[in-house]
Amino acid sequence: MFAPIPQRQNELVDSTADPAHSMLRIRRLGIDTYQEMVVYLRDDSPICRSEGFEALSRVEVRLDDRHITATVNVVRSDSGIPLARGEAGLSESAWRALGATQGAAAHVSHPPVIESFSQVRAKIYGHSFTEEGLQHVIADVVEGHYSNIEMAAFITACASNHFDLDETVALTRAMVDVGSRLAWHRTPVVDKHCVGGLPGNRTTLIVVPIVAALGAIIPKTSSRAITSPSGTADTMETLAPVALESAQMRTVVEREGGCIVWGGGVNLSPADDILIRVERPLDLDSDSQLVASVISKKVAAGSNRVVLDLPIGPTAKVRSTQAGQVLADRLVAVGNAFGLRIDVLLTDGSQPVGRGIGPALEARDVLAVLRNETSAPQDLRERSLLLAGRILEVAGVATDGSGIAMATAALSDGRAWEKFQRIAEAQGGMRDLKLAPHRRDVVASHAGRITSLDNRRLSRIAKLAGAPRAAASGLDLHVRAGSTVQRGQPLYTVYAEAPGELEYALEYALHQPESIVVEAL
Amino acid sequence: MFAPIPQRQNELVDSTADPAHSMLRIRRLGIDTYQEMVVYLRDDSPICRSEGFEALSRVEVRLDDRHITATVNVVRSDSGIPLARGEAGLSESAWRALGATQGAAAHVSHPPVIESFSQVRAKIYGHSFTEEGLQHVIADVVEGHYSNIEMAAFITACASNHFDLDETVALTRAMVDVGSRLAWHRTPVVDKHCVGGLPGNRTTLIVVPIVAALGAIIPKTSSRAITSPSGTADTMETLAPVALESAQMRTVVEREGGCIVWGGGVNLSPADDILIRVERPLDLDSDSQLVASVISKKVAAGSNRVVLDLPIGPTAKVRSTQAGQVLADRLVAVGNAFGLRIDVLLTDGSQPVGRGIGPALEARDVLAVLRNETSAPQDLRERSLLLAGRILEVAGVATDGSGIAMATAALSDGRAWEKFQRIAEAQGGMRDLKLAPHRRDVVASHAGRITSLDNRRLSRIAKLAGAPRAAASGLDLHVRAGSTVQRGQPLYTVYAEAPGELEYALEYALHQPESIVVEAL
Repeated sequence: MFAPIPQRQNELVDSTADPAHSMLRIRRLGIDTYQEMVVYLRDDSPICRSEGFEALSRVEVRLDDRHITATVNVVRSDSGIPLARGEAGLSESAWRALGATQGAAAHVSHPPVIESFSQVRAKIYGHSFTEEGLQHVIADVVEGHYSNIEMAAFITACASNHFDLDETVALTRAMVDVGSRLAWHRTPVVDKHCVGGLPGNRTTLIVVPIVAALGAIIPKTSSRAITSPSGTADTMETLAPVALESAQMRTVVEREGGCIVWGGGVNLSPADDILIRVERPLDLDSDSQLVASVISKKVAAGSNRVVLDLPIGPTAKVRSTQAGQVLADRLVAVGNAFGLRIDVLLTDGSQPVGRGIGPALEARDVLAVLRNETSAPQDLRERSLLLAGRILEVAGVATDGSGIAMATAALSDGRAWEKFQRIAEAQGGMRDLKLAPHRRDVVASHAGRITSLDNRRLSRIAKLAGAPRAAASGLDLHVRAGSTVQRGQPLYTVYAEAPGELEYALEYALHQPESIVVEAL
Repeated sequence: MFAPIPQRQNELVDSTADPAHSMLRIRRLGIDTYQEMVVYLRDDSPICRSEGFEALSRVEVRLDDRHITATVNVVRSDSGIPLARGEAGLSESAWRALGATQGAAAHVSHPPVIESFSQVRAKIYGHSFTEEGLQHVIADVVEGHYSNIEMAAFITACASNHFDLDETVALTRAMVDVGSRLAWHRTPVVDKHCVGGLPGNRTTLIVVPIVAALGAIIPKTSSRAITSPSGTADTMETLAPVALESAQMRTVVEREGGCIVWGGGVNLSPADDILIRVERPLDLDSDSQLVASVISKKVAAGSNRVVLDLPIGPTAKVRSTQAGQVLADRLVAVGNAFGLRIDVLLTDGSQPVGRGIGPALEARDVLAVLRNETSAPQDLRERSLLLAGRILEVAGVATDGSGIAMATAALSDGRAWEKFQRIAEAQGGMRDLKLAPHRRDVVASHAGRITSLDNRRLSRIAKLAGAPRAAASGLDLHVRAGSTVQRGQPLYTVYAEAPGELEYALEYALHQPESIVVEAL
């Protein structure tokens, strides 16, 4: 209806239309802010005056054809920090994202208004997302336009407000669309996924080599921990590189039939990996995000048959069979929308699987199973064979009912271990396992029988000890539900890479007697 | 049931139980991170090894009897930033909060686990807050234990999930309990509040002097802008200091009968002021937070009779009379729980009040009304008289039905202007008003009649021009609904303190023809 026609200008001061005013020389400041991108500007920088930038302003930094949106921190001119008036200091994350070189001239300006956040606001106020709205939100997230607090609001809105099937499909599609997608020349391409919440449930590292050894194609991508002490990618990384690029992953799968790589490296669902950086400190994940995360990665990986392990238990992620069935139905429905056939197995999630909790301690359990050691945790072995058996059946490698026997044979006779080593070599080479040096036992204060183990509290202790960041830390369980113990007998050992973390974890453990309940006999 | 009895230690490396390891010398780094507190540690700092700290870790910093919770940024040892291995660099916000001195020895350690965040998580998942839960959350917020993303999640949860009356009362009580509370020796103590969303609605600066001139006690505290281009405190600050402490505010009220100060300075509801730092960039506020924010401040200010102005309009905060009534009922009910009597006036919120949008431009309108200038915006004058009249009636100063006449007399004969100047002097001295130098008109692209003005879009333009941070910026309306305009006639003038912001605001305005709709005749 109208337009700002500049026919009558009453500016008292001449405009700085001169774009040179917004050009600053890049300086790598060497400050690690984790993933949030920060630009440091001097308080007497001309651009702070001309553009009105101040601390917490969001700015766009352009360097050649690359650009980022970053948060401004303002540096006092008398601070002694080596930053000139005409320079823009970059945090390590911003430096990496821009692919910058020292002294390069970059254009710093106001970022475009993030229109998509109004969609998030509408969702918070109870409206549904449209497919287009979610596409814009996820595209902006991947472009780095969302600040941490905007992502926190999006994640909280997803967790707070029900997503219907259409919204979940739309979120999944948006997450697929912003990433790469793999295609394979054979079919079926199988996959597995375990819904989290059960520490130590590292069946992937056993299932993939069994299934691949028997001739199926299983291009497995895994995530790093979101709120747990270890993700499958974290555990695998203690044994072999997992941050492969798409082409490297393809080579591994073409040579060995399977792989166990980090999904973030192959850019299959990059939005997910960005959102995780905020989900993790909030210790928050929602069903809709979980479904979109799982299905988007399977679709992007080019799978068409998927077996899902959904553990149920009072302290697992899913607490009842009923809730498990709701989640399973949603996973199946969203999978179907993308032509994916999904089998869901509801499994026992009442206590941790295996003995170790934390990347390296879990890897130790996996190796014991693969090598058929007598000390191998039987629960981890059995769960792996159950899943591998079903996958072999849906892949058409085994006839119905014969999957478990076929999987057991491949594990027992060493073919799976042989295949695991080959996959690890193909991914960059098998690594030696290291466990953390600082260790202390937590012992029973009285004799009795173990009646319950709390997955969440035990996970919390492992996290306070440093897992998953400190990969060699965590805890090692010496008991299971039903075990009897004497007074003073170790219940578990806490492992930490730093003494401060050991104390921190033990301080918490001391106040959490419900972690492992010992009932006097 | 058990305890970590250290009877059997199997640590391979001796523990650093030595607390000297966690002592670091404080250094002010001179980096402004806005309100988020940041501690900078060298990557080769012994404490990073011993405690496992890394970027985004949360740490507690203790200095004598003060302590803060801060976020770690890690500085590369070869960065050139003046920070030694044994030093902890502080952001400006952390430096201020600790009251630190250069070189002081501080203890840096893991912060206590924030147990209260599990209450926020439960709310996100659909459970109600308990009174105790909200007390813990708000206490932790005020203690600075919540990071920005945790606050973003709390605010989003409050906006997403319905708060019932009990929860809203509990939130209000929690916000009162963490702050100071004023008591007055006279009664009734009156107050007013305008629910936001209506740019330019600065009746407070007119109502307070009228009411105080006529002998009522009105200790008015106002907030700074959350999501708007100006809060009442921002507008008043262009005319006089508003960041008074509690004792100063008391002196002003005892001397003049009223004041117009910033609530944050008198610590009446400090949680609110902290939450605002995240609400503002998210442009998000919820009914429950609004009610708790308003009522907690009135209770803390010691008022017992309050008149609320609740503007209704399609682009106001409250869009329908029905929604207004729901909000009014909630405000009255929560107020009653604290012994507060509240009268709500539902008013016209279809377009901005007065002409200016932005702190200084709004102050200019206020001065015109107080000085009875012929150019004074009549709508601002009339709203102020309506509110002042009602307050005089509930205060028992005027008989029912005579309030407006009494208010009008006090405004017309200069008593209100005289009182305003006295209040401004008592608050620290009247200031000269400055308007921003960079100005440009937005003109009608065709002749016609103005059918609507969009409060939200016009506010957005004023904010992009720099308001409220740049107090002299904003926009000045030349038309109202019903005005007729010729092609090329100015609709409004954008004011900015920096040329970059002027361009930024005009760039947005260009794409928002709905801001002011001109219907061809």
